[in-house]
Amino acid sequence: MAGLDFLFSPSSIAVIGASKHEGKVGYTVLKNIISSNFPGKIYPINPSTDEILGLKSYKSVLNVNGGVDLAIVTVPAEHVFQVAEECGQKKIKGMIVISAGFKESGHSGAVLEQALVETAKKYNFRILGPNCLGIIDTLTPINASFASRAPLEGNIVFASQSGAILTGILDWSIEEGIGFSKFISLGNKSDLDETDMIKELANDSNTKVILLYLEGVKDGLRFFEVAKKASRIKPIVVLKSGVSSSGARAASSHTGALAGSDKAYSTAFKQIGVLRAHSIEELFDYGITFSLQDIPEINSVAIITNAGGPGIIATDTCEEEGLLMARLEAETVEKLRTNLPRESSIYNPVDILGDAREDRYEFALDAVLSDSNVGCVLVILTPQAMTRPLEIAQSIITVSKKFSHKPVVASFIGGESIQEASKILINNDVPCFEFPESGVKSLAGLTKFASLKKIDLYEEIPRFDVDNEKVNEIITKVYDDHRLVLLGHEAAAVAKAYGIPTPKVELAKSLDEALEIAERIGYPVVMKVSSPQILHKTDIGGVVLNLENQEEVTKAYYTILSSVFKYFPQAQINGVSVQQMVPQGRELIIGMTRDLTWGPMIGVGLGGIYVNLFEDVSFRISPFSRKVAFDMISETKAYRLLKGMRGEKPSDIDSIVDVILHVSQLSQDFKIINELDINPLFAYDEGCLALDVKITLEKS
Amino acid sequence: MAGLDFLFSPSSIAVIGASKHEGKVGYTVLKNIISSNFPGKIYPINPSTDEILGLKSYKSVLNVNGGVDLAIVTVPAEHVFQVAEECGQKKIKGMIVISAGFKESGHSGAVLEQALVETAKKYNFRILGPNCLGIIDTLTPINASFASRAPLEGNIVFASQSGAILTGILDWSIEEGIGFSKFISLGNKSDLDETDMIKELANDSNTKVILLYLEGVKDGLRFFEVAKKASRIKPIVVLKSGVSSSGARAASSHTGALAGSDKAYSTAFKQIGVLRAHSIEELFDYGITFSLQDIPEINSVAIITNAGGPGIIATDTCEEEGLLMARLEAETVEKLRTNLPRESSIYNPVDILGDAREDRYEFALDAVLSDSNVGCVLVILTPQAMTRPLEIAQSIITVSKKFSHKPVVASFIGGESIQEASKILINNDVPCFEFPESGVKSLAGLTKFASLKKIDLYEEIPRFDVDNEKVNEIITKVYDDHRLVLLGHEAAAVAKAYGIPTPKVELAKSLDEALEIAERIGYPVVMKVSSPQILHKTDIGGVVLNLENQEEVTKAYYTILSSVFKYFPQAQINGVSVQQMVPQGRELIIGMTRDLTWGPMIGVGLGGIYVNLFEDVSFRISPFSRKVAFDMISETKAYRLLKGMRGEKPSDIDSIVDVILHVSQLSQDFKIINELDINPLFAYDEGCLALDVKITLEKS
Repeated sequence: MAGLDFLFSPSSIAVIGASKHEGKVGYTVLKNIISSNFPGKIYPINPSTDEILGLKSYKSVLNVNGGVDLAIVTVPAEHVFQVAEECGQKKIKGMIVISAGFKESGHSGAVLEQALVETAKKYNFRILGPNCLGIIDTLTPINASFASRAPLEGNIVFASQSGAILTGILDWSIEEGIGFSKFISLGNKSDLDETDMIKELANDSNTKVILLYLEGVKDGLRFFEVAKKASRIKPIVVLKSGVSSSGARAASSHTGALAGSDKAYSTAFKQIGVLRAHSIEELFDYGITFSLQDIPEINSVAIITNAGGPGIIATDTCEEEGLLMARLEAETVEKLRTNLPRESSIYNPVDILGDAREDRYEFALDAVLSDSNVGCVLVILTPQAMTRPLEIAQSIITVSKKFSHKPVVASFIGGESIQEASKILINNDVPCFEFPESGVKSLAGLTKFASLKKIDLYEEIPRFDVDNEKVNEIITKVYDDHRLVLLGHEAAAVAKAYGIPTPKVELAKSLDEALEIAERIGYPVVMKVSSPQILHKTDIGGVVLNLENQEEVTKAYYTILSSVFKYFPQAQINGVSVQQMVPQGRELIIGMTRDLTWGPMIGVGLGGIYVNLFEDVSFRISPFSRKVAFDMISETKAYRLLKGMRGEKPSDIDSIVDVILHVSQLSQDFKIINELDINPLFAYDEGCLALDVKITLEKS
Repeated sequence: MAGLDFLFSPSSIAVIGASKHEGKVGYTVLKNIISSNFPGKIYPINPSTDEILGLKSYKSVLNVNGGVDLAIVTVPAEHVFQVAEECGQKKIKGMIVISAGFKESGHSGAVLEQALVETAKKYNFRILGPNCLGIIDTLTPINASFASRAPLEGNIVFASQSGAILTGILDWSIEEGIGFSKFISLGNKSDLDETDMIKELANDSNTKVILLYLEGVKDGLRFFEVAKKASRIKPIVVLKSGVSSSGARAASSHTGALAGSDKAYSTAFKQIGVLRAHSIEELFDYGITFSLQDIPEINSVAIITNAGGPGIIATDTCEEEGLLMARLEAETVEKLRTNLPRESSIYNPVDILGDAREDRYEFALDAVLSDSNVGCVLVILTPQAMTRPLEIAQSIITVSKKFSHKPVVASFIGGESIQEASKILINNDVPCFEFPESGVKSLAGLTKFASLKKIDLYEEIPRFDVDNEKVNEIITKVYDDHRLVLLGHEAAAVAKAYGIPTPKVELAKSLDEALEIAERIGYPVVMKVSSPQILHKTDIGGVVLNLENQEEVTKAYYTILSSVFKYFPQAQINGVSVQQMVPQGRELIIGMTRDLTWGPMIGVGLGGIYVNLFEDVSFRISPFSRKVAFDMISETKAYRLLKGMRGEKPSDIDSIVDVILHVSQLSQDFKIINELDINPLFAYDEGCLALDVKITLEKS
């Protein structure tokens, strides 16, 4: 028995907590298993009866003769531990714990859940749940859940962290005619989680698309690695909720402030080729389209319609969704011109007029699908006097099958007059939507996945020779000082140790030292207050630029100290840093923030005061290749500045890529670095300089 | 008979082109009028028969005894002119021309349409169409269209420029249980258009919300004035398509490039309080919600749910849609804590748990609606073991009626098990959606309209004393020169004449003149090439800054000329402008572009190289008040810079408002100015300066 077969197609099941009493979960689950025509053995377990629903019942799972693959547990939480012990002794392979009252209900429940997980580890069996609805597999078949209906058969898997969404969708999908291979309720994810499901189903030939509703990912690193591989094989679409709570996270860096946890999810999903849905409707519109149609080879859609208005609306949606309107080949245009009535629009969108019957639909669809500039097609129908929806649906099905590698979806707009036609389309693998916008979005989803699939995820991750020792030394000193924020010169030294170019800088503890350092570095210099409490130094007059001589250094020293005393009388002042004054470059920010789920996330974008104004920052989860680092830059609007606008020289983008990659390596080598901001990084025609580096450590 | 009563509730109708033959439009229309129980007189007109569908038929409308209010014309286009003449003589009040073959079919059709309009003017009757489906009024009742079914009764008006969308929606709406007062097919809008309908229906007590599908607005100025007043009275929701074609318009100014025609539509709609829908689904989700529920008093929603997942999803959507989550009063929280089970979530979203029955829904809904922090409520239901959708629907209806001023919408997620409950809700004025996202969007629509309604649209439009004469003089000279683009010093002079502060500048035709001007203005100076062909001077080395003395002016003069000769050998060079060098200010753009539909559109935003990079420009249709000019600035991200970030002094925003208002007045006074860009406008702590002004004229 391979993988999770014990869960989806066990040979034998024990229902622990099976009940004779209608209305009890233990009754419903057993009844569902029986009614689903499950072909394996079923053992009801209940200490106080001998027979339930016509099956012999056992006092304990230990009393069953022969093996038990899967136990389904519905007894109250406080008895689950004992049940798990017995199941362990019986050498079961898996357990679905439907019972609630675990982690979701507070501390004592969490303790129970931990004990359960440890028991499973001890006996080497896996757990789905607790606090879940169970699973349904339409192919085994088995309905080991307390959902009253089973979904239609199909090739979509839906795994959900919310049981209520699972049941709601199950019910809804039957009316919509959408079929599933598996419904999986993830519950508390004490053991088996979304990653296990993806791993299992990536190679399941009965599953064409994996849909997930998640409120969080349990193990980001593992999800990243597993989903990255799985998404090469088949589409994974995730509706991740909790977007609104993500802004709340406190962050002391600019990068951290821009990179909320929801941003980290989006970044990770994009990076590994997981498609993100933004509503329940979108999740299932994607699901049905991936389920029934193939992936297009090119981003290029043709629209066929029997009315102008919906064609224009669909075209608008294409623009919004980044789906390109196909430019039909001259030959196709000519073919349409010759065969369609004179008033037709023979360019895309192709308007075959209100009196179009099935022959015209068939001809036009065949013509555009034959066009090598067309990657996919949306067929729109509005019910008009001459319209024959059923016959047209049949034509669409016929032509669509002929060009099965090019996705075709339909939008039939109407009520009673098109309902049957719409069902026939869906039953014959052509998704049909109420409104054209959904059709376009679905095709855009297919097209997005096609391009995600092409991303090469196995590029080399560079390693540079760096001075780890030096960084260790600095960090140790900072912790010894009971600080978490590095002082400017310390952060600059870390950067330097990691090959990130910085201006010369030293810390002065007195005016005399400042003057001496300025002489050594060479005028002009910049002076900045050094204090762990003051993060935005410019705001409070803690920075003075362009000091040309001893006199100016002296004046600046006193100006800075008096400003700081005024605004931050309680601040601890470590001195004033004296730094080489460098020419103005194009201002960028490069930063790192450590996400709780996904680990270090690196960002690059327009720096200086524009960081907060425009949030023009592109992110990736570390580590990544040189190519990805370049992609990050090219995704920002700042890239247009870097390439040189209006005849200016381009910046040295290679040197910026180097900084990104070194920051990435630093974040990998030192997990105790929590946040890092280089802002600004000055980019020049040749090279770049990290003007200001901020580093914050994890609480040790 | 007031307004358009002749159209929606005529006393008598002639159907010109009425036919005995099933399948003919003239048959269907007559049959529909009869079957709709139209209470007035019906006269079929057909030269070759005496009786149709049991009614006496006439050879011509002139043969009818007694008056005819409305003629419905289905005869071929080439006969419509003759029919119109006869109708005119018969003194009809209105005509619905269903026949196609007019403007939509090319030049000769356009001529026919023009003749038809002139006939109507001559005889003082109004026309709906041609090339339309007709109208349906469910209250009169009358179905004067060739749509085969009539919609359910209700208080929504839907007027559509696309007949196909009208029929599709009509059909769809019956299944969905959505009721309408009127369906109006606008057709070619040769005479009556969307503005006439808004004007008529604003004061129609049977209409609660006006929905429009438009591909364009016929008369922008009139629409602006009429819709501005109507939107104070009732919501107008528009789905305007053709977004994707709008980018194509050629524009020579930055402002023009950013302000495509779709931007102009969005700007105008927002300015006059018209709500814009972005999909067919959104249009009707708004329609049904406005139809059934009141406008909330505050932006604040409470969510009640029997499952966590959908509650989180709804909360996410609130954030996306700008709908604020209500912070429940302490008293409400206490009430919920005392009465709900311990595991419930008593903060918003309120999770009343999976076993919630009608009593718990009723209690929770009553509690949150009683809370003065709550403006509206979304109630979510997922079908679980104990859930009784019908009883819960009834509870929601009861409580919702008790708090009828606070909108309540529902989302019941499921199929068969919730369908009846969903219908009952809708039939009892509680909109019910398949998924919670639609519920949130609808409430957001109500809330948006509530704030649009509060905008004071009757603020004073300032008029300034300006030097019109001077501008006239300059423009005349430009036209005399056969130019459309003003030279830099000309544009600056126009700005100066309109009270817009500019640096001192003069045009030098020779090096000697340049030197003389520089002496007069005072060093340092800036020099720029002056050529009608060169719009982006900096890009090709046509600008040299900060010239301190004669030597530098001399050098710059030759540098500029050689650069220009290199890049633009064919350019006509009018000389080199010599301009006072002014200190660097915060760079803004203020511009004007004249939209074909809406007239002059004024924009303000971040200037310089950031214009194209971030498109941070806020627009309004001119004219507008001082307050609106300030609002424009405050909507941009540049506003944060202007207010002074990080301890900098704020810019003189009043002076910027002045420039915006003067540009607006200039655009009103000189309709021949097509586009204007001030980029950059330097904003200072005190005052501002228009550094570079570009003005393009209309082809005269």
